[in-house]
Amino acid sequence: MRMYDLIMKKRNGEELTTEEINFFVEGYTKGEIPDYQVSALMMAIYFQKMNKRETADLTMAMVKSGEVVDLSGIEGIKVDKHSTGGVGDTTTLILGPIVAAAGVPVAKMSGRGLGHTGGTIDKLESFKGFSVDMPIEKFIENVNDIKIAIGGQTANLAPADKKLYALRDVTATVDNISLIASSIMSKKIASGADAIVLDVKTGSGAFMKNEESSFELAKEMVDIGTNVGRKTVAIITDMDQPLGYAVGNILEVKEAIETLKGNGPSDLTELCLTLGSYMLLLSEKVTDLDEARRILKDIIRSGKGIEKLKELVEAQGGDPAFVDNPSLFEKASIIEPIIASKEGYIKGIKADDIGRAALVLGAGRETKESEIDLSVGVVLHKKIGDYVKKGEAIATIHANDDEKKKVATKMILEAYEIVNEKVERKPLIKGIVTEKGIEKF
Amino acid sequence: MRMYDLIMKKRNGEELTTEEINFFVEGYTKGEIPDYQVSALMMAIYFQKMNKRETADLTMAMVKSGEVVDLSGIEGIKVDKHSTGGVGDTTTLILGPIVAAAGVPVAKMSGRGLGHTGGTIDKLESFKGFSVDMPIEKFIENVNDIKIAIGGQTANLAPADKKLYALRDVTATVDNISLIASSIMSKKIASGADAIVLDVKTGSGAFMKNEESSFELAKEMVDIGTNVGRKTVAIITDMDQPLGYAVGNILEVKEAIETLKGNGPSDLTELCLTLGSYMLLLSEKVTDLDEARRILKDIIRSGKGIEKLKELVEAQGGDPAFVDNPSLFEKASIIEPIIASKEGYIKGIKADDIGRAALVLGAGRETKESEIDLSVGVVLHKKIGDYVKKGEAIATIHANDDEKKKVATKMILEAYEIVNEKVERKPLIKGIVTEKGIEKF
Repeated sequence: MRMYDLIMKKRNGEELTTEEINFFVEGYTKGEIPDYQVSALMMAIYFQKMNKRETADLTMAMVKSGEVVDLSGIEGIKVDKHSTGGVGDTTTLILGPIVAAAGVPVAKMSGRGLGHTGGTIDKLESFKGFSVDMPIEKFIENVNDIKIAIGGQTANLAPADKKLYALRDVTATVDNISLIASSIMSKKIASGADAIVLDVKTGSGAFMKNEESSFELAKEMVDIGTNVGRKTVAIITDMDQPLGYAVGNILEVKEAIETLKGNGPSDLTELCLTLGSYMLLLSEKVTDLDEARRILKDIIRSGKGIEKLKELVEAQGGDPAFVDNPSLFEKASIIEPIIASKEGYIKGIKADDIGRAALVLGAGRETKESEIDLSVGVVLHKKIGDYVKKGEAIATIHANDDEKKKVATKMILEAYEIVNEKVERKPLIKGIVTEKGIEKF
Repeated sequence: MRMYDLIMKKRNGEELTTEEINFFVEGYTKGEIPDYQVSALMMAIYFQKMNKRETADLTMAMVKSGEVVDLSGIEGIKVDKHSTGGVGDTTTLILGPIVAAAGVPVAKMSGRGLGHTGGTIDKLESFKGFSVDMPIEKFIENVNDIKIAIGGQTANLAPADKKLYALRDVTATVDNISLIASSIMSKKIASGADAIVLDVKTGSGAFMKNEESSFELAKEMVDIGTNVGRKTVAIITDMDQPLGYAVGNILEVKEAIETLKGNGPSDLTELCLTLGSYMLLLSEKVTDLDEARRILKDIIRSGKGIEKLKELVEAQGGDPAFVDNPSLFEKASIIEPIIASKEGYIKGIKADDIGRAALVLGAGRETKESEIDLSVGVVLHKKIGDYVKKGEAIATIHANDDEKKKVATKMILEAYEIVNEKVERKPLIKGIVTEKGIEKF
């Protein structure tokens, strides 16, 4: 088999066989096939696409390129959740505890990653003493004991995906649906997931800017899951404005605590109930979604959700007192309201600009080496459809540097679009994709 | 400027600017832009094409990537000829002398190259003592003195093209008309040509297998020439069977000598008269093609053409006695007729199979290091439209190894298609492309 022939076949619009896909992924991972042939193939795939079978094969070839986390020691069906990434997305900190409280095992491997704010691990580390460093045996023991553990990604998961993504990133071959979908799914499957619930964000603050492409990506991932025997459901959700009100690490943790106590923003609460219901369904804990939703609402109402968060924090060395008394969390030195410059209805909030403002303040990493400032960020007070009076605060900024505060404040003000006419609130959930098909709301 | 943005632009079907094309060709030549980005760009170009301006810019960027031969010391307009390559193509050995004899400077840089038989230099070296090793001053002096010199390609001509071609060759991005055309034209222009006559072969023995793509390539090269101020004409000629009768180095030299003496095969003679007429026209030696053809025919008839070959051989250290007495040339140890297995009309002769038979005999190079056997090859006796009787020889094989002879004989027999019905002879010249347009015959 020659890589040249694979490139030629795909260039000419032909289908690659399972053996050919395995050959190129293995060869590339081992360094036997050079970057320049793989980038040519990626560009050919960009133009000629891959079919469902090829995409599933690519996914499994990338899974097999490295370690696969063995979660067989955990009882029950392991359902993982993945978000394609947005601004102010704190769902894992809420979803994990409520789903675990419902008796479904949550064995979550998280990354730190690059982004506007830190990842789930960074956020959890704001609980003094919290750590994800533990051997896999302890991780599994924790899940069996309290149904939840959050681990770091220590295993060499899907190295082919890492190598391929890095190459695609510099050769303008990232935005192909099959390649994006197989990249995400390979990591989830290598993490040991039996079933997967996907939160596919759509809008200005998301990777997919329009609904059509978001549904397409969702469909592609669900098809991969179905093809490789992992039940997969995707929820398409709005990211035309930040999710919830808080953007920043500790600010989001506090919001998650409030949500677990039943006082969270309605959009964030709704998203967690929806994603959680599907997780219960895929784990076969329930047989219908209404039942799942009732169970999860009850978990919040009864305080079982917030108790589960405390158990999690304590089990991994963190101080659970922070949950009962969030004022213990570190605070930024400058906390100031951002005043609206005009009166009117909020028509839009550019989510990516709000995210960039948080990054400017120091909430996220620009490079792998960047230090995160856990205390900084922004808390919005107004969202799309709200009315703001002149002189009223649209947000509160949390900063530790006056210069950065000024830059971020300007960005936040500019992110808001305020108009005279009344503006309709947008629905958060745009649709659901399951193996049965696409349902748009 | 970032290479990433160039790939993205072309991928999205946009036009690259002159500056962008220069940036990438310079950067790649210097090794500042990696192979994997260039192969992705080449694949994007394969799908999105380049327009005339981009193609001309790429050509000139590749010309500027290395040395440009300075032929300004030669009086008159320097017209170069280029063939896209076929089987049994001895035109340079005939064209050079007759055009030079008409007073047009022939300053030819030739390569050895890989192929079914050797290149022009290999063939000329069958004249004992002949050498292309000379300083550029001597080369120019020879052209001014006797109007002809054949040099080796010593200068670092269009290194960007060499590097790009090597990359395209392993990434399935060779067959794009703009890339093929700019590759050929950049080398011709770097060789110092003021004007260019192209012989674009079409058919089973050519790089371009069908007429449509051959005309397309011809048009693309003529457009490049026109865009960069080099008058260019392309003749599209048949390569569905070998040109002339001889395939092999010395065998072709002998055929060239016969043709210069007025006794050559009609197709080879016709091709040389046509290409030569355009060379005279582009050099502004004549104002119309009929006049050019009269002059060239007279040069052959009067013996001035064969005299010019002797002058060339002598000027470069070769023994001109070989021209008068071709029996002095080395001969193969085995010379045997190949007998037709059936009676009928020749319908086809797979030119590439005849070429491969010559390669098996040792007439060409498979790798740069291969030694060429100048004496071996095949002389065809029958061409398309001819009638062959059972037991009659269709060709004569010249070999130095019995085993190779057997293999080659089989290949030659199989290359011939013999049918019962009368077969029409095909016209050699399929059409002409000039800056005014395409003329199909």
